[in-house]
Amino acid sequence: MTATSRFEITERSKVKRLPERGHYDRALAYEILDQALICHVAISTAEGPLVLPMAYARMDDQLVLHGATASRLLQLTGTGQPISLCVTLLDGLVLARSVFHHSMNYRSVVVFGHARLIDDDREKARALDCLVEHLAPGQTGYARAPTAKELNATCVLAVPVTEVSVKRREGPPKDSKADYELDIWAGVVPLQTVTGKPEPDPLVRADTPLPEHIGRY
Amino acid sequence: MTATSRFEITERSKVKRLPERGHYDRALAYEILDQALICHVAISTAEGPLVLPMAYARMDDQLVLHGATASRLLQLTGTGQPISLCVTLLDGLVLARSVFHHSMNYRSVVVFGHARLIDDDREKARALDCLVEHLAPGQTGYARAPTAKELNATCVLAVPVTEVSVKRREGPPKDSKADYELDIWAGVVPLQTVTGKPEPDPLVRADTPLPEHIGRY
Repeated sequence: MTATSRFEITERSKVKRLPERGHYDRALAYEILDQALICHVAISTAEGPLVLPMAYARMDDQLVLHGATASRLLQLTGTGQPISLCVTLLDGLVLARSVFHHSMNYRSVVVFGHARLIDDDREKARALDCLVEHLAPGQTGYARAPTAKELNATCVLAVPVTEVSVKRREGPPKDSKADYELDIWAGVVPLQTVTGKPEPDPLVRADTPLPEHIGRY
Repeated sequence: MTATSRFEITERSKVKRLPERGHYDRALAYEILDQALICHVAISTAEGPLVLPMAYARMDDQLVLHGATASRLLQLTGTGQPISLCVTLLDGLVLARSVFHHSMNYRSVVVFGHARLIDDDREKARALDCLVEHLAPGQTGYARAPTAKELNATCVLAVPVTEVSVKRREGPPKDSKADYELDIWAGVVPLQTVTGKPEPDPLVRADTPLPEHIGRY
């Protein structure tokens, strides 16, 4: 199956508010999905919607999620309930001349769909590798690999990246015309997620060096 | 109304997976809500759940959300549909000796409830001040205040912070006992959101200085 380079726009994936911020381009969606670290997953329950943060990774044209086999969210979604996932990168505070035009620069991807439980062992192992490599590149070849028992205790779901909205705001504030005359500073304060100095587990063996790949994070 | 210092645990707010990570303490929830910049809001629609990123702020014991009066999400939630909001701070990558015990340090707050449309003008103006001050402290006293027309174009919702789960993971990885003998580095790579150097709008007046409060972000 070859994925299309543009997503088909559906009633629910169509960006209705500020449509100029809406995009349906697969390459842009993948750039955002590959850069962000966590997603927020929503499901509908009898008592109302539930939203939770989760690790995720892109595996080809799917997003994969994992959790304990006993997890409520994964049990619910694995039965084919509709699901919605959102990944958001916050790029800046947009400070306008007017309070009204304050905004944020961001890039977000919303995926609508159904989750499929991955039960094939090889596919599951590959999905777990994707999850670890997404957050901690190089660790699948370095840390101890999962045992059969550990794999059984883990539940992995796949959601196709098919019905998707991408939203992006970038650049300086857009003020009302008359406000450009005001003696008020306006601009963007960039935001970024950064890594700090690795903190060794106090129980790590004294002769174990920090591997080069972790030093590069 | 005096808010309780601990949230009452309900069936849906009870942390079921890894209950040792669950907290129901109002002060901890407020610390997280006041530090994070955006939330993810979920609602249920006829086609399934919808999750979107939104700005928010805490106003006393409520969270306030805003958007254009025409916004689909706000129209739906303003009619009293159940809503779920999640705020997540990512604090670190937890690198274990085994792939299986890789994790993340994080703090998250999930709020369940119903949104109320704020129609009182003074309450609405205060909620909008909270929203701006949450993201850009000092801007309400600096940028041009909203006009009546701008206030009318904005819809503000309040969600009580009453039914709440807080989850937190902190500290080093927890590996299986035998793995502590392995010659594999383990520890935490801290993550943090930082601000960069303010970037002036190219159209800002040349004689307008960067205000001190923005320089402090």
